[in-house]
Amino acid sequence: MNNILILGAGRSSTALITYVLARAEENNWRVIVADADPQLAARKVGNHPNGQGVWLDVMKVNDRRQLISRADLVVSLLPAHLHLEVVYDCIDLKKHFITASYVSKDLFKVVNEFRNNELIFMGELGLDPGIDHMSAMKTIHEIKGKGGKITAFRSNAGGLVALDCVGDNPWRYKFTWNPRNVVLAGQGTAQYLENGKFKYIPYHRLFKEYRIIEVPGFDEPFEVYANREALLYREAYGLADIPDIYRGTIRYRGFCDAWNALVKIGLTDATYPIMDSDKITYHELMEAYLAKEGSPGASVKERIAGLVEEREFSPVMKKLDWLGLFSKKKIGLSKATPAFILENLLLEKWKLKPKDRDLIIMQHEFDYELAGKKMRRFSTLVLEGKDASDTAMARLVGLPLGIFTKLVMQGKMKVKGVHIPVQKEVYEPVLEELKSYGVLFHEREEEL
Amino acid sequence: MNNILILGAGRSSTALITYVLARAEENNWRVIVADADPQLAARKVGNHPNGQGVWLDVMKVNDRRQLISRADLVVSLLPAHLHLEVVYDCIDLKKHFITASYVSKDLFKVVNEFRNNELIFMGELGLDPGIDHMSAMKTIHEIKGKGGKITAFRSNAGGLVALDCVGDNPWRYKFTWNPRNVVLAGQGTAQYLENGKFKYIPYHRLFKEYRIIEVPGFDEPFEVYANREALLYREAYGLADIPDIYRGTIRYRGFCDAWNALVKIGLTDATYPIMDSDKITYHELMEAYLAKEGSPGASVKERIAGLVEEREFSPVMKKLDWLGLFSKKKIGLSKATPAFILENLLLEKWKLKPKDRDLIIMQHEFDYELAGKKMRRFSTLVLEGKDASDTAMARLVGLPLGIFTKLVMQGKMKVKGVHIPVQKEVYEPVLEELKSYGVLFHEREEEL
Repeated sequence: MNNILILGAGRSSTALITYVLARAEENNWRVIVADADPQLAARKVGNHPNGQGVWLDVMKVNDRRQLISRADLVVSLLPAHLHLEVVYDCIDLKKHFITASYVSKDLFKVVNEFRNNELIFMGELGLDPGIDHMSAMKTIHEIKGKGGKITAFRSNAGGLVALDCVGDNPWRYKFTWNPRNVVLAGQGTAQYLENGKFKYIPYHRLFKEYRIIEVPGFDEPFEVYANREALLYREAYGLADIPDIYRGTIRYRGFCDAWNALVKIGLTDATYPIMDSDKITYHELMEAYLAKEGSPGASVKERIAGLVEEREFSPVMKKLDWLGLFSKKKIGLSKATPAFILENLLLEKWKLKPKDRDLIIMQHEFDYELAGKKMRRFSTLVLEGKDASDTAMARLVGLPLGIFTKLVMQGKMKVKGVHIPVQKEVYEPVLEELKSYGVLFHEREEEL
Repeated sequence: MNNILILGAGRSSTALITYVLARAEENNWRVIVADADPQLAARKVGNHPNGQGVWLDVMKVNDRRQLISRADLVVSLLPAHLHLEVVYDCIDLKKHFITASYVSKDLFKVVNEFRNNELIFMGELGLDPGIDHMSAMKTIHEIKGKGGKITAFRSNAGGLVALDCVGDNPWRYKFTWNPRNVVLAGQGTAQYLENGKFKYIPYHRLFKEYRIIEVPGFDEPFEVYANREALLYREAYGLADIPDIYRGTIRYRGFCDAWNALVKIGLTDATYPIMDSDKITYHELMEAYLAKEGSPGASVKERIAGLVEEREFSPVMKKLDWLGLFSKKKIGLSKATPAFILENLLLEKWKLKPKDRDLIIMQHEFDYELAGKKMRRFSTLVLEGKDASDTAMARLVGLPLGIFTKLVMQGKMKVKGVHIPVQKEVYEPVLEELKSYGVLFHEREEEL
């Protein structure tokens, strides 16, 4: 096996490409990076003798199949909806397939074909999903191995920016990953288990009903809002009967109340276009959400404060104001949904500056019973990026892909079929090598 | 033309069937009523010599086409999604088609074929949609005919129950039409125009931001919540540049705040099933929506009161309690969504008693300028039913269909093609004859 094909040369590819190319010569690998933008692909490869950036329109079946047919292993960083076609090609052409994206039910359906072909399909091998699975399973296997019974699993993670890089941004948040996902986060109903009972938080209450957590090494506590699909992890992690399971997203204090105000106004909705969105100002957009008549002479800002149940100069209103939502600047986007208008505004306001360092926090909490004692284990990862182009986020997504790619190429992985990284054989060597990149989980334990 | 086919013998068919059969002998009509339940169809026809109830599974193409082929005119009371097939049959077999349902874009597409065949397709010919179109267009044409300029159109309607029939029901609301539509009402974003500006009310604020209106003849004011699609009526009514257009639903005072509480809790959501819904009680369902920890010793009811921002014995909480939402009775429905559980509960609680009289209120408000004066015209319909089987709702849906059917059968309608009843030729004779059934719009006018 000598040929690696990487599909997609965007943000998440850098750490992966760097990792694989650094080991290409000694392993005699040839690394092809394919992207719709061939210059981007070439730039990521640089002048490495074992690498090549090529142009690919992934919708062109013949081109795609030709590239895949020359590879032994394909790593896909394409948008999730494009995976299925590539997976079918890989089955057909007998190639291993690795991705950081979620593994859908459609993809799981092809498991048997992979098995028959002695192929590996590994999905959810980035940070979240990815490192969350691996680090959680390591502790779960360890506790179970000692005869412990796990009674609660809570797992929280967030992609933030280092506090000394927030500058005058009162949200203390900047985009370090997909902005659209941040704007639409949580739509639907969050579901989890608490004391053996199912719990539901509808979207319109999600950012109001956040939790507070402490993370070692930080002076101030964090906010956590519930993720939608905690219940799915029961099966994936072998925790079928667990009475407490929760997954959440970590933000600095103050974020959730302010985001809740945006939800309340209606600005995160992507289901209908704002009329004349190319002609109106942000101020007029705010006014369009004011149905109730205001007190005589009340400004739009005062009335929005009333709508979100805040005083006009409260910290929440200060955050809305700072975004420019009350400015008389034109929105300048045609047929735009509220969510798209908001995303566009935030893209500018929440952009990382070149020297900004992002910050990844992941913290698992396990309650378990062992030898008559009730224990709580915390397992915490904190990692900062170097700057806006070498982010902790990109590294933590790309490195697991790179390490696993190496192990497969070197014939060191016996796992076959469609998987997410929950097997010891997978997470152990990956987590071990990640340590050398500073990816360390700090563990602490207390008796309950 | 002698043969009338009525598809569907449900609730909305009675007044129509009665109307048509009463005129069948003198006009030499043969009236076929087809339903999946042939006994229901036969019962509605009774022993009238010109009528016949027949069995029809509308999905069986050949049976359906055979029935249609023998008719001159088809009235469809089928669920809206079944219309398109019937419409295609009618085009093909050259039959007129009439329905009370909304006319979708798909249906409008077939307009030219209808025109070529000199056929009539008339949709939205019930109460709302139906009588709302006709009565509004009558006033719009009248004001425009005098040279007036319409500057605002607000139209509100509601299907209620007479106040002396509410008994001990603190909601003062009972089902008089489709319960599912009541439970899901307003989901999406209401859009309308006010002072030349577009306005948006997201669902999670819809029942909080209601208006108050007065209706002549009633001592107490009513609540109105905004309907989603007011803007569509600009084109349909020839009011393209109108700066104010609004459509709303009328309820008795106190309804909206209490319904808002159900929305806030999350009980109107039809997008996910409640886990173990066949095993848990209503009380446990309420508890499942309590994510935040309560004060020590706080009951579920106290905590729900906190969630909906009410005191424990407030009128809103009294309404929730009356529904049995805090009872330890089992829900007894498997894989049910919150909305389905709520609908099922309300079906019992909000059921009309045999002697209950329903109440229809429809009120249009037109602002216009004429000869230098600014005027406001109110046009109000109030009609009570006789009892739970002869409802004002069923009459007001069925009679326009019946009257229009008569006019077409008698060759008195020149309108061809796909329409909703906005033409003078249509609304004038229909509204005129409706008067003899007590369907009278009370008009009053004031200078602004």
